[in-house]
Amino acid sequence: MARKIIVIGSGAAGMTAASSARAADPAAEITMFTEDADVAYSPCVIPWAIEGKVAWGAVVMHAPEYYAKEKNITILTKTKVDGIDDAAKTVVAAGNTYRYDSLVVAAGGKVFMPPIPGTDLDGVFVVRTVSDGKKIQAAVKAANDVVVAGAGVIGLELALGLVHMGKDVTVVEMMDQVIPRIADRDMADPIQLYLEEEGVKFVMKAPVQGVNGAGKVSGVTAAGKEIPCEVVIFATGVRANLDLTSKIGLDVGRMGAVAVSPTMQPYKKGRLVPDIYVAGDMVQCYSAVTSGPTMSQLGSTAVRQGAVAGKNAAGGRAQFGGVASPWVSVIGEKQVAGTGLSTGLASWYGIDVVSGKATGLTRARYYPGAKELTVKVLADRTSHRIVGAQIVAGEEATGRIDWLTSAAVNGMTAEDFLVRSENAYCPPTSMVKDVVISAVEKLVENFKP
Amino acid sequence: MARKIIVIGSGAAGMTAASSARAADPAAEITMFTEDADVAYSPCVIPWAIEGKVAWGAVVMHAPEYYAKEKNITILTKTKVDGIDDAAKTVVAAGNTYRYDSLVVAAGGKVFMPPIPGTDLDGVFVVRTVSDGKKIQAAVKAANDVVVAGAGVIGLELALGLVHMGKDVTVVEMMDQVIPRIADRDMADPIQLYLEEEGVKFVMKAPVQGVNGAGKVSGVTAAGKEIPCEVVIFATGVRANLDLTSKIGLDVGRMGAVAVSPTMQPYKKGRLVPDIYVAGDMVQCYSAVTSGPTMSQLGSTAVRQGAVAGKNAAGGRAQFGGVASPWVSVIGEKQVAGTGLSTGLASWYGIDVVSGKATGLTRARYYPGAKELTVKVLADRTSHRIVGAQIVAGEEATGRIDWLTSAAVNGMTAEDFLVRSENAYCPPTSMVKDVVISAVEKLVENFKP
Repeated sequence: MARKIIVIGSGAAGMTAASSARAADPAAEITMFTEDADVAYSPCVIPWAIEGKVAWGAVVMHAPEYYAKEKNITILTKTKVDGIDDAAKTVVAAGNTYRYDSLVVAAGGKVFMPPIPGTDLDGVFVVRTVSDGKKIQAAVKAANDVVVAGAGVIGLELALGLVHMGKDVTVVEMMDQVIPRIADRDMADPIQLYLEEEGVKFVMKAPVQGVNGAGKVSGVTAAGKEIPCEVVIFATGVRANLDLTSKIGLDVGRMGAVAVSPTMQPYKKGRLVPDIYVAGDMVQCYSAVTSGPTMSQLGSTAVRQGAVAGKNAAGGRAQFGGVASPWVSVIGEKQVAGTGLSTGLASWYGIDVVSGKATGLTRARYYPGAKELTVKVLADRTSHRIVGAQIVAGEEATGRIDWLTSAAVNGMTAEDFLVRSENAYCPPTSMVKDVVISAVEKLVENFKP
Repeated sequence: MARKIIVIGSGAAGMTAASSARAADPAAEITMFTEDADVAYSPCVIPWAIEGKVAWGAVVMHAPEYYAKEKNITILTKTKVDGIDDAAKTVVAAGNTYRYDSLVVAAGGKVFMPPIPGTDLDGVFVVRTVSDGKKIQAAVKAANDVVVAGAGVIGLELALGLVHMGKDVTVVEMMDQVIPRIADRDMADPIQLYLEEEGVKFVMKAPVQGVNGAGKVSGVTAAGKEIPCEVVIFATGVRANLDLTSKIGLDVGRMGAVAVSPTMQPYKKGRLVPDIYVAGDMVQCYSAVTSGPTMSQLGSTAVRQGAVAGKNAAGGRAQFGGVASPWVSVIGEKQVAGTGLSTGLASWYGIDVVSGKATGLTRARYYPGAKELTVKVLADRTSHRIVGAQIVAGEEATGRIDWLTSAAVNGMTAEDFLVRSENAYCPPTSMVKDVVISAVEKLVENFKP
């Protein structure tokens, strides 16, 4: 009899799990439940779609019918799953009970809304789904002043897009730097400066205290002052959506997300749960650079976790390793990227880091179009292991951060990196000694007392 | 008394050795001998300088006086070293004898000229020094037909540049593919096709049999036919320059170059030679992906080897590891890159490889400006270790090949790569699952019998 696989959620983790299960078991009966109307879209592109650089139609890769036809995956959209019975191996959705042999839960995350007055007013938005994006695009049309709450990369990408659309944009951030937590201040400040030059205003060290207005938004209070605006967008980070899994008592880790094994299986009171797999933004996984737990709420991670969950759900064998969670953001003419631990995160994990930083160019000094490239690499002061890196560049940050991710995940020390790391060189694409290597040279110098 | 350090050669290896020695020992007396008139230039940029994309003035980074003033390094240009006495620790140059405490030999390579008639005619050139480049630029001004002998990356970059200058260009290549040896045929063919579309003509499987003309070049014979031309440029690869080191009996390895230890010291009859260091194109080093010897005649390698040689020559402690020798070439709108072993090279080392290849885009599918990206990854059929990779892309090949280099050098298997490798994702700079990862997925599938 065909294996019955149920997937809850149609984000990157859920969609990949379903496709991966199909690849592993051509005969399985695969059913997906999603509250969304759209499936298989790329939420990371929403800032560009709002700005109009990318058409909404292009953001959604395929309609549900495509999956039915091409992959024999049944997708029930706008369908909320009300409960899971992990003993009976069933889920209940829209009043019906569905039996499963394997279940993949990829219920995603929820945008964190601070507990302040006024967040229910007209004109308050979050950035999560295509539908959120379309609502923002419609709302800003008539607006002049927009507040973006949260100076993470999504908030910043969005803020610049709105400025390009002619809006007056203020970013309100609780911390004292942009891209807090994952970027060091000295790497984040040039991005803030660039955005200020482009016309974005910032109110820093100021949690949003309230959204004001009668029926609809008229302003936001932050740092004790009112910032008048017609639209407020919360880009305040994502928390794991535990609505379903908490009902059946799946263990929640220190990070407030479902703790999983390398097979993407959850635990109940410390014991592995058979036949259930969890993936994506609701998951707590392991760090590749500390021995601690971490969250990796990235589209790229969701895809990798989904692939493992789906394959295992279909009777295959796959594992998900520790993560360094490399990220990159394109903010106008700037690219900012990071991997592993920032100085702040390292300190949170009890790791004292030494850093090395170098600035150079993305191409040979004399080659036309060369752009500035700054690389910062962090290593543990005790072991000299590379535990993180950050890049600010005019171009080509992505491959470099993936390179540094590989070094960190493979446990290279800074000294070992200098002995065994090489860069490809051609005048139009790098300096003869890439700035990544120069940064690690500085790092090794900085170990000296 | 100040340590006397002599450096022979002013290429990337020699210049870096001198600077690295200065950094390690501020008091040393450092003297460099070079036959060249220019020092510290980037030979890799010569094709672009000939085309006029980069000014000759920009190619030379500093005049010798700069090094005298800023780094207290004495450079004797246009000065040939006639001999080394490693027992007396002296070198003889221009009739004078100079004593050294440490000697760095970075005498570089010589362009291989096939033993055929006519290579001494007017209008025959090699591509090695700034002076070669300037002579070519002057000679092609009046020429219409140019033959480039050798379809390696320098030959191809040059050929396209000459086409852009309005010349009629034929590339003559002995092997049956462009970029032979280091690129697999299926990755090289699209580059040849692109160049053909741009107007470059190819005569393949045809060694140059002779250069014809009376006093000056009138044509080239290849594959039994005459190709009329006024200029012939040999880009036929570089051999180690052993003129000096063979006189003192330094061991030459299987690759025809000076065998060195990880400290960049040469051997005599298998015994390490004290106080001499060798670096750059004349060196045989170790492969990071096989246990065999290899040569790595790249500017980036020369810089790394020079840094190790210079530091050790100055009493410091540095090591040079095995190399995967990543390379990249920008040929018009195409980038081609590689690392580690090609299928052909692997076979030469007795390694049977399995490959995986994937094609996708450099950005998210829907993001404007996305360019095609093809990645091929090779692993040893027995151990599943990643031993090489190649990329053809419209942009951003360099960082990706450096990433794959790190994976190969760290001994990752293809399976391990899928468990532990991550890519940073942002719609304008990569697909959510980078094509590199898709290629390794194919590779793992292809292991199955």
